[in-house]
Amino acid sequence: MTSAISWVDRSLLRAVRRIADPVHVQVAAPGMSSPAPRQSPEAPTIWVDNRRTLAALLLNPEVSFGDAYSEGRLDIVGDIISVLETLFESTSRVSGWNLRLVSAWLQWIQSNSLDGSHKNIHHHYDLPTDFYKLWLDRQMLYTCAYFPDRTATLEEAQRAKLDLVCQKLWLQPGETVAEAGCGWGALSLYMAKHYGVRVKAFNISHEQIVFARARAKDQGLTSQVEFIEEDYRNIRGHFDAFVSLGMVEHVGAEHYSRLGGVIHGAIGDSGRGLLHFIGRNYPQPFSVWIRKRVFPGAYAPALREAMQMLEPSDFSVLDVENLRPHYAKTLECWLQRFERSYESVAQRFGSDFARMWRLYLAGSIAAFNVGALQLFQIVFAGRKCRGIPWTRNHLGKETAERQQQDQPWIHAMP
Amino acid sequence: MTSAISWVDRSLLRAVRRIADPVHVQVAAPGMSSPAPRQSPEAPTIWVDNRRTLAALLLNPEVSFGDAYSEGRLDIVGDIISVLETLFESTSRVSGWNLRLVSAWLQWIQSNSLDGSHKNIHHHYDLPTDFYKLWLDRQMLYTCAYFPDRTATLEEAQRAKLDLVCQKLWLQPGETVAEAGCGWGALSLYMAKHYGVRVKAFNISHEQIVFARARAKDQGLTSQVEFIEEDYRNIRGHFDAFVSLGMVEHVGAEHYSRLGGVIHGAIGDSGRGLLHFIGRNYPQPFSVWIRKRVFPGAYAPALREAMQMLEPSDFSVLDVENLRPHYAKTLECWLQRFERSYESVAQRFGSDFARMWRLYLAGSIAAFNVGALQLFQIVFAGRKCRGIPWTRNHLGKETAERQQQDQPWIHAMP
Repeated sequence: MTSAISWVDRSLLRAVRRIADPVHVQVAAPGMSSPAPRQSPEAPTIWVDNRRTLAALLLNPEVSFGDAYSEGRLDIVGDIISVLETLFESTSRVSGWNLRLVSAWLQWIQSNSLDGSHKNIHHHYDLPTDFYKLWLDRQMLYTCAYFPDRTATLEEAQRAKLDLVCQKLWLQPGETVAEAGCGWGALSLYMAKHYGVRVKAFNISHEQIVFARARAKDQGLTSQVEFIEEDYRNIRGHFDAFVSLGMVEHVGAEHYSRLGGVIHGAIGDSGRGLLHFIGRNYPQPFSVWIRKRVFPGAYAPALREAMQMLEPSDFSVLDVENLRPHYAKTLECWLQRFERSYESVAQRFGSDFARMWRLYLAGSIAAFNVGALQLFQIVFAGRKCRGIPWTRNHLGKETAERQQQDQPWIHAMP
Repeated sequence: MTSAISWVDRSLLRAVRRIADPVHVQVAAPGMSSPAPRQSPEAPTIWVDNRRTLAALLLNPEVSFGDAYSEGRLDIVGDIISVLETLFESTSRVSGWNLRLVSAWLQWIQSNSLDGSHKNIHHHYDLPTDFYKLWLDRQMLYTCAYFPDRTATLEEAQRAKLDLVCQKLWLQPGETVAEAGCGWGALSLYMAKHYGVRVKAFNISHEQIVFARARAKDQGLTSQVEFIEEDYRNIRGHFDAFVSLGMVEHVGAEHYSRLGGVIHGAIGDSGRGLLHFIGRNYPQPFSVWIRKRVFPGAYAPALREAMQMLEPSDFSVLDVENLRPHYAKTLECWLQRFERSYESVAQRFGSDFARMWRLYLAGSIAAFNVGALQLFQIVFAGRKCRGIPWTRNHLGKETAERQQQDQPWIHAMP
């Protein structure tokens, strides 16, 4: 029953092709698979199941693309990362009223208030730890790694990142550190074990805190590291240093001055700190689909916006490093491992979930590759801070030495 | 004729002492030299000549202090730098209507328009080059040096700074560079000679351009380096990299987006750049006295403000380094050399000028020491820039090697 393509179908397809160009768009429904002009059949192609999905793509391109891919109503033939890169670049200037509306609505319903943050964080980080074990490194670090060279393994790169962070903070034995948003506890335990500091680590993900506590016990570090199931806004006590990896993205721009106040409360004028977060070249909302399905309430600040955390307390920025290519590489490692476990993920969590995660990981690689996302590490210090290193020469030194050792400090997962 | 201190005198002195506390204030005029309570006679002391200067200090503390010191109506007994540090900290919250008024007025009359910039730059940089030769390093660099370690000499530290800048920009032989605000030409000549690049260097100080051209000729670099007497707003041409040391301070916040446009015009989306400038932890006006007497039209931006130069062109910040303590040390070297030539400066330019410069150099050391000023080096790249170094490991390497050589590359001044 190969009916002729209707005028409506042709118009829809043409409009979608205009957005996706130069990526080829095809429709699988009978009668709608006309090849686009001047495209070879081997060109990377987006296959859309039918007219309905095509119309949805026009109304709300980003969310519809993500949802349709997750649900298998849309597929990508060709290298998914390079197709997504092309789409990012071709669609980066497309931002209609519909997208802005959805974006504003999400920001409202996903507010990062105390309760809101709890809900938002629960959505992502309270997935069973077993799921993350499938594709993260053995220490369970879910933030950008630092590859001393391009041949380093993910394991090596995550260790190098931990050393880099500790060295940038010039941690000294006996000092105290507050960690906000501590994930499964890897950094806190590492700082305590290898830099001799005492840590209070805060996190509102119940699953992660339970896991981190078990690890502390397993490693005999419970007297040095305390894992506290609590929001960053409720950090109490005085510390020599403050550190946070991958939490700022979940704070929301409207709470930066609050977070800044919390940091100042924790380290006063004499402490120092490090913030590690996904950022932007200029302010813009986070991907609507990512906020809807993956990270509710997420926002990646431009450096200018991040300064709201530091300026009011007269903190001096000492160092900013952009690790963007390292995050692309980290995500490549994660995606590779994820694909190796794809079948078991699909079996346990369903195919929609597995496809959604594949798109999220691949899309993140593409976003870092094209420069839509950045990864900033900011080191700062209070105006009475003493002992600031004279140069950066102390960075990376110990890392190299440690890598030649037999790595006796990686512990088995509990 | 030791008359009793009048009630007016006592009130004036008390008010000034309140501002300067804990620095001791004394009046030299007969009958007014009562020691402050609880102060030992050896305590660092500000001596004021008479009631009139005392009154001026109350009306317009900063400008009156600077002018009275320059004209010898006020003196500092004790270490001038530490007295100024104490004053900075004690008076940092003093900002009356009078100071704000003078500040706004200065901003208006010292506008950094094309003509205004010319006048402002002429005031400082068109002083006879011989004057700067007395206390700068042999290469004539009038910006913060980089001391690989605290024992490095000023000559070594300025060389290390030049290498650091070239390495941060990963300059490759054959590439082209635009330098805005090139001073006496040291960086441009160094880049050409040691990194094999071709440079167009811009400056509106006539004295400096004349000197730089003579140097280029002397070093046989005229085919590689062109010194152009022109405002940064008139930079034309396409370059691989853009660099500017110590010019942003003279641009004025209202012209940052214009400067950003000029940079983008010069390097497009595929280039990279480095900005090196005196900055702040948060936005605040530059010292009124410095603007009135030393640097008309000067403004030191907070990082947030500096982003106005980069955001509109989608530039990615790759690296920010705060070299604040290095500037304090650079200034200490300059002040030391300046003091050695003090008598000849006073003889040639007058005692007021010599004292003004002493106060400006000592005050700058104090300002960097207490953190009122910062020194930022920002490296950034366009969104299509290729070849961005994977890590920072390439920095500082060649510097160390070069330092072991016999330094054949320092040329005598023309």
